Amino acid sequence: MTKVPEEEHPVKAFGWAARDQSGHLSPLNFSRRETGDEDVRLKVLYCGICHSDLHSMKNEWGFSIYPLIPGHEIVGEVTEVGSKVKKFKVGDKVGVGCMVGACHSCEQCNNDLENYCPKMIFTYNSIYHDGTVTYGGFSDTMVANEHYIVRFPENMPLDAGAPLLCAGITVYSPLKHFGFAQPGKHIGIVGLGGLGHVAVKFAKAFGAKVTVISTSLSKKDEALEHLGADSFLVSRDPDQIQAAMNTMDGIIDTVSAVHPILPLISLLKSHGTLVLVVLVGAPDKPLELPVFPLISGRKMVAGSGIGGMKETQEMIDFAAKHGITAEIEVVSMDYVNTAVERLAKGDVRYRFVIDVGNTLAATKP
Amino acid sequence: MTKVPEEEHPVKAFGWAARDQSGHLSPLNFSRRETGDEDVRLKVLYCGICHSDLHSMKNEWGFSIYPLIPGHEIVGEVTEVGSKVKKFKVGDKVGVGCMVGACHSCEQCNNDLENYCPKMIFTYNSIYHDGTVTYGGFSDTMVANEHYIVRFPENMPLDAGAPLLCAGITVYSPLKHFGFAQPGKHIGIVGLGGLGHVAVKFAKAFGAKVTVISTSLSKKDEALEHLGADSFLVSRDPDQIQAAMNTMDGIIDTVSAVHPILPLISLLKSHGTLVLVVLVGAPDKPLELPVFPLISGRKMVAGSGIGGMKETQEMIDFAAKHGITAEIEVVSMDYVNTAVERLAKGDVRYRFVIDVGNTLAATKP
Repeated sequence: MTKVPEEEHPVKAFGWAARDQSGHLSPLNFSRRETGDEDVRLKVLYCGICHSDLHSMKNEWGFSIYPLIPGHEIVGEVTEVGSKVKKFKVGDKVGVGCMVGACHSCEQCNNDLENYCPKMIFTYNSIYHDGTVTYGGFSDTMVANEHYIVRFPENMPLDAGAPLLCAGITVYSPLKHFGFAQPGKHIGIVGLGGLGHVAVKFAKAFGAKVTVISTSLSKKDEALEHLGADSFLVSRDPDQIQAAMNTMDGIIDTVSAVHPILPLISLLKSHGTLVLVVLVGAPDKPLELPVFPLISGRKMVAGSGIGGMKETQEMIDFAAKHGITAEIEVVSMDYVNTAVERLAKGDVRYRFVIDVGNTLAATKP
Repeated sequence: MTKVPEEEHPVKAFGWAARDQSGHLSPLNFSRRETGDEDVRLKVLYCGICHSDLHSMKNEWGFSIYPLIPGHEIVGEVTEVGSKVKKFKVGDKVGVGCMVGACHSCEQCNNDLENYCPKMIFTYNSIYHDGTVTYGGFSDTMVANEHYIVRFPENMPLDAGAPLLCAGITVYSPLKHFGFAQPGKHIGIVGLGGLGHVAVKFAKAFGAKVTVISTSLSKKDEALEHLGADSFLVSRDPDQIQAAMNTMDGIIDTVSAVHPILPLISLLKSHGTLVLVVLVGAPDKPLELPVFPLISGRKMVAGSGIGGMKETQEMIDFAAKHGITAEIEVVSMDYVNTAVERLAKGDVRYRFVIDVGNTLAATKP
């Protein structure tokens, strides 16, 4: 007989969970496993709200397990380590991102690409090695194998650094993998939200020329003056697209609504790559792929999903060195449903981060 | 006032042309330019019939100029060379493929990728530097700048080598560019027609393991026993697709009918690439691109269009060294309309080649 979340494990925990596809979050007593030999336990201090949390809470991808505790941009302080843990000690500031497990024996795992392991375990809404459901960072405590723990550098703020654990690595990894992370490259960033605004910062730090591509002019000043982009392009303006045709080496597309990719492909130079980094629309709804422009310019459309643990640590270290953080609005735990509503409308500049450490306990019934 | 094709240039020529979008071919007296300083003139001996000839003859891509003389798999014997020609002499056996000009000053041209030059000039149905329309190889004589002339090695048969000038380079170039041309790679070839059967031969010569992917079982024995493929997969059989999921490093898709690419993407290993090498359906009809499988495996969908002149010569030399030719059915010039009908139905194993040298003259009115 399956135990209820509160009795499943020995360690008491408290968080906010969605109970059904309304997605509404409310307090939940649950439990976490004891700290295993290779595990690191942390007190959660901050947790970002990612757009994929919304999809999961509302079961829009069709595989949600309720009650569902979201949150995979988790930062906290180590409170306990297992006997075989080598890299962390009590008091360390650390993060947990999108995944907490993988097979560690396949080709992907052997190449530090656990994110592409067929048996990768997500931080929440996934089945862990012990057969129990994983729960995310909208909670007071977290436990994970040390392999999935990221060390936060001294100078990386815990709140504004949290979103890098998902939004950051999601754009950093393709910038590196597809050869965009080089001085002199001209890189387009589509969508100026949680992912896009961090992508601009990383691409600039790599020395690229960065053009922000957005559906409306409203973010132009922000992109150019605040985030440091070199130029701004309104994707719905055919004249602007025409003028910029065949000028970009690569494009990172962070838009989750269904949108035409033909204009984006036309912006690429020959041999350029358009990289999709978020699920667009529903999983079973395809985009329209124009074939002629791909063939005539040997262009590519690729996907990329987060990054491996080694690269995630590299990303956080790079961000700390270059002063890159997310632009955030810190909110209290009891504001989370409002924050989720605002996020769904794009009403946030650019990422909500929940101050879990200071505001969760007060919501206990 | 524009002159008629017969009076446009000083050199009399004779060929077969489509006059309207019925695509029906019939004899035409036309003319070709004098042999310029850098030009090579040849007597056409053989010319392959490519699927794109059909599209052009019937104006299915919307930019046909009538009368239209098709043919871009042209092999012949040099009859005259210009004063500045360095690489060829009268009597040489040579070929002309899909293009006869480019700008020679852009980044693509400077990298031996004239095929991606924005000003690339097709062998027929294109406007040459002098402002006149280009005509293809269904004709008695051909003239082209020596840069676009390919030397046929001694042991390369002129008839069975002709299709390599389009079908061969179209598959050879992506096999090399996308890293498929290596021992140990598992490569899928979709469609066993004019391009596909040559792709199998090249991929095998590169040492790859080759799986032919076809809509029906009918070509299985041919693929395995005659062409030397390692395995055969029926793309409409979900069980066969399921069993081969995540096993291929790359796939070359040679199918010109609209078809689902989701099953093909599922066959790729993580980080694998599906390469589309022919225009699928109409230019304005997109394929359906599933996003989830791209992201979860960092997979790519790319296009590739023929190859540059340097690589085309390399391809012919490689083919000669490895005994690679196309499987052909040689037909006479007056059979061309029947051949085109049969090609449209897929009724050819695997390429029609017109014996222009021996059969064209007899069709003169």
